[in-house]
Amino acid sequence: MTAPALPGLLEALRGFEAGTLSRDAYLQACAARADECEPWLKAFVTRVPTAQLTAAADGPLAGIPVGVKDIIATAGLRTTNGSAIFADHVPVEDAAIVTAIKRLGGTVFGKTVTTEFAFRHPGPTVNPWNAAHTPGGSSSGSAAAVAAGIVPLALGTQTMGSIVRPAAYCGVVGFKASFGAVPREGVHPLSGSLDHVGFMARSVDDVAYALALLGDPGYALADGADLAALRIDPQRGLAPLPSPSLALVCAPDWHKVGAEQKAVLEQVIAKLRRSGASVEEVIVPEIGAPTLESLRHILGREALDIYGDLVARYPERASAPLKGLVEESRAVTQAAYVTARRTQRELRAALSTRLSGYDAVLTVPASGEAPQGLHDTGDASWCAPWTFLGFPALTVPAGRSARGLPLGVQVVGTYGRDVPALRVARWIELVLAGQA
Amino acid sequence: MTAPALPGLLEALRGFEAGTLSRDAYLQACAARADECEPWLKAFVTRVPTAQLTAAADGPLAGIPVGVKDIIATAGLRTTNGSAIFADHVPVEDAAIVTAIKRLGGTVFGKTVTTEFAFRHPGPTVNPWNAAHTPGGSSSGSAAAVAAGIVPLALGTQTMGSIVRPAAYCGVVGFKASFGAVPREGVHPLSGSLDHVGFMARSVDDVAYALALLGDPGYALADGADLAALRIDPQRGLAPLPSPSLALVCAPDWHKVGAEQKAVLEQVIAKLRRSGASVEEVIVPEIGAPTLESLRHILGREALDIYGDLVARYPERASAPLKGLVEESRAVTQAAYVTARRTQRELRAALSTRLSGYDAVLTVPASGEAPQGLHDTGDASWCAPWTFLGFPALTVPAGRSARGLPLGVQVVGTYGRDVPALRVARWIELVLAGQA
Repeated sequence: MTAPALPGLLEALRGFEAGTLSRDAYLQACAARADECEPWLKAFVTRVPTAQLTAAADGPLAGIPVGVKDIIATAGLRTTNGSAIFADHVPVEDAAIVTAIKRLGGTVFGKTVTTEFAFRHPGPTVNPWNAAHTPGGSSSGSAAAVAAGIVPLALGTQTMGSIVRPAAYCGVVGFKASFGAVPREGVHPLSGSLDHVGFMARSVDDVAYALALLGDPGYALADGADLAALRIDPQRGLAPLPSPSLALVCAPDWHKVGAEQKAVLEQVIAKLRRSGASVEEVIVPEIGAPTLESLRHILGREALDIYGDLVARYPERASAPLKGLVEESRAVTQAAYVTARRTQRELRAALSTRLSGYDAVLTVPASGEAPQGLHDTGDASWCAPWTFLGFPALTVPAGRSARGLPLGVQVVGTYGRDVPALRVARWIELVLAGQA
Repeated sequence: MTAPALPGLLEALRGFEAGTLSRDAYLQACAARADECEPWLKAFVTRVPTAQLTAAADGPLAGIPVGVKDIIATAGLRTTNGSAIFADHVPVEDAAIVTAIKRLGGTVFGKTVTTEFAFRHPGPTVNPWNAAHTPGGSSSGSAAAVAAGIVPLALGTQTMGSIVRPAAYCGVVGFKASFGAVPREGVHPLSGSLDHVGFMARSVDDVAYALALLGDPGYALADGADLAALRIDPQRGLAPLPSPSLALVCAPDWHKVGAEQKAVLEQVIAKLRRSGASVEEVIVPEIGAPTLESLRHILGREALDIYGDLVARYPERASAPLKGLVEESRAVTQAAYVTARRTQRELRAALSTRLSGYDAVLTVPASGEAPQGLHDTGDASWCAPWTFLGFPALTVPAGRSARGLPLGVQVVGTYGRDVPALRVARWIELVLAGQA
């Protein structure tokens, strides 16, 4: 695949505003791009027929087609949850975030492939850069569709690493905000204390714009501001935070991070330092076994409650990984679960304080390029601790592997410090593009 | 109606334990009571056929039939949301709290009548004490079914006053815990920042037992304990908090509170003082216009997002009150909504601090007895400010009107102080029964 020629989100909005691009033409071009790619890419479970794609006359998302992960309910549009149990399920109501997209003039373009219930069992989507490799998961179709230039914005969800990892594997920006900042009503749950809804797009500006519009405006950020205060002017984008102070966290399981991924991170650090950033390695012992084990206890117990009965009733329509999750989770005691929830609360506060001297954390989004094969969507370990903490996290494309697959760097903020994390990422993006 | 002869929740559990009551016999007796009352009471939309009611062999809720408000999803059992739009809706999955009930051995007895989507448009249920009067709403069927002795426990939801008010009108204990303490997954939303799931039962012990089992065990109470620490021994019940220090709040709109309701409150205060309580009137200016207006802004904006599109697509299947809510809510600006959410956060903290010298607040649950007529479920004003704050609140039966309809008193705790509020209410219950 060559890099997509169609404009990204804010780029398209600037085109609409300038009169150089028509909203309907853009929608039709996106549909044509899908027609071209979908036979091999398989990013969508369900597409809205091209003839039905119409642009709203106004609104901050007018003319913007959005890919909606297929665990997010869309009224009148099939929503399979990636599961054979829901193969014919057509919701009566939209999820809250879909309502918001429509209210703001956006167009639901189609439903993107998800692993079964956003857990492990993969769908058919391939990596747009090499069809023999996974796009990552669980938000597989959203990452692939954005990378292929079919849609400028797609919704994903992340319980461990389901936005940041596929975004990194596909070479796009993937962003999940602080826990609670983006409405989840109407999103099929995997684990209520871990699930986040987030965004995939082609630039940091674009995901920041999505958060400003689609986040909960009444969400209180760490500095006391409401999320409604985040307003992104499509002409100017998000102000970068130049020469930030960054905490480099080389965890968890750094020995499993591949040489290419490490090299990309080192190159990025060198460039950032040359541009004035301070990058200081910080040892955070909790980013590893303590967070990963607590996450497993929370995920296990909560998923057991959601899926135990379903798997028992439809054993022939549930995958082996889902059945395995349910079975393993029966060993998690209530005491272990409660302790894990307490650990989550305490570490969220403690690490937010401990890292408060930095503008953001810099780390890897994955151990390296997207693994070969479609049977497995890759290892979420480098995202999961930050998801567990509910910290805002995003991946920024930063290089390529020898095989030409994308590699990224991950920028993480502490709890409620979404805006500084985004502004740091915007600056990194500019530095890497030679523009800062 | 005469008072129900069947044992309540903990009473039944003690009977099972002692071998004086069989679980299956209890379920059958509850079904027989429903057969007797339902022709005129109309508390249930859907009943599980009696032949299918079976008791689990063990579990802390084994043998306990539970009424489930019909906006709470039950797998394979019709869930109408009180709406013609969902008249034939059969969910694939249980709501989280229904999963928990089943896991703990409880039996779903049937779906209780709710107003349309838990807003205003009433269902057919009558007040068990006088069929010409409303049972209150929106949890109409749950309150009526518990009052009539059909089930010892029923689930309700409260966005303004939908548990406490009908419970007071029907003469049962109605309890909603602190915001966030009881899982809401699978409950049809009315307003995400206000909706609470809670319990109706015949005693404070019974609702405390329900919270201990069905609340989120990882929920952090104000004293730092997890909700899992609340354990109620069915033999002993909840320890009362004797001679508490109570803040009497005579708000909002005290001039609208009827003479009978005021007289009951005064009699209760006199009895509590004689038994050693300190009751001191505290002026809380925020309990009134500021909270009620902010609540309207939050409810309006959130309900518009949930119902705007639905009402537009199914105008002939939506009630006038729901359409009115959607229409009026278009006038709520984003700025007003964000301000209301901020007010909610700030008052939650400020009033928790201001009232921290008291064990609980004492006030009325309603302006008086259940109003005559079934077209309106009564005024939620005396519950709504506390719901807005997310404070735990419960009503305890405290007397009768001249017409023989129940009257209650409301006990409110500050945020996260659910256990002291329950223990105060337990003590009040004992004082009123002449047992303390």
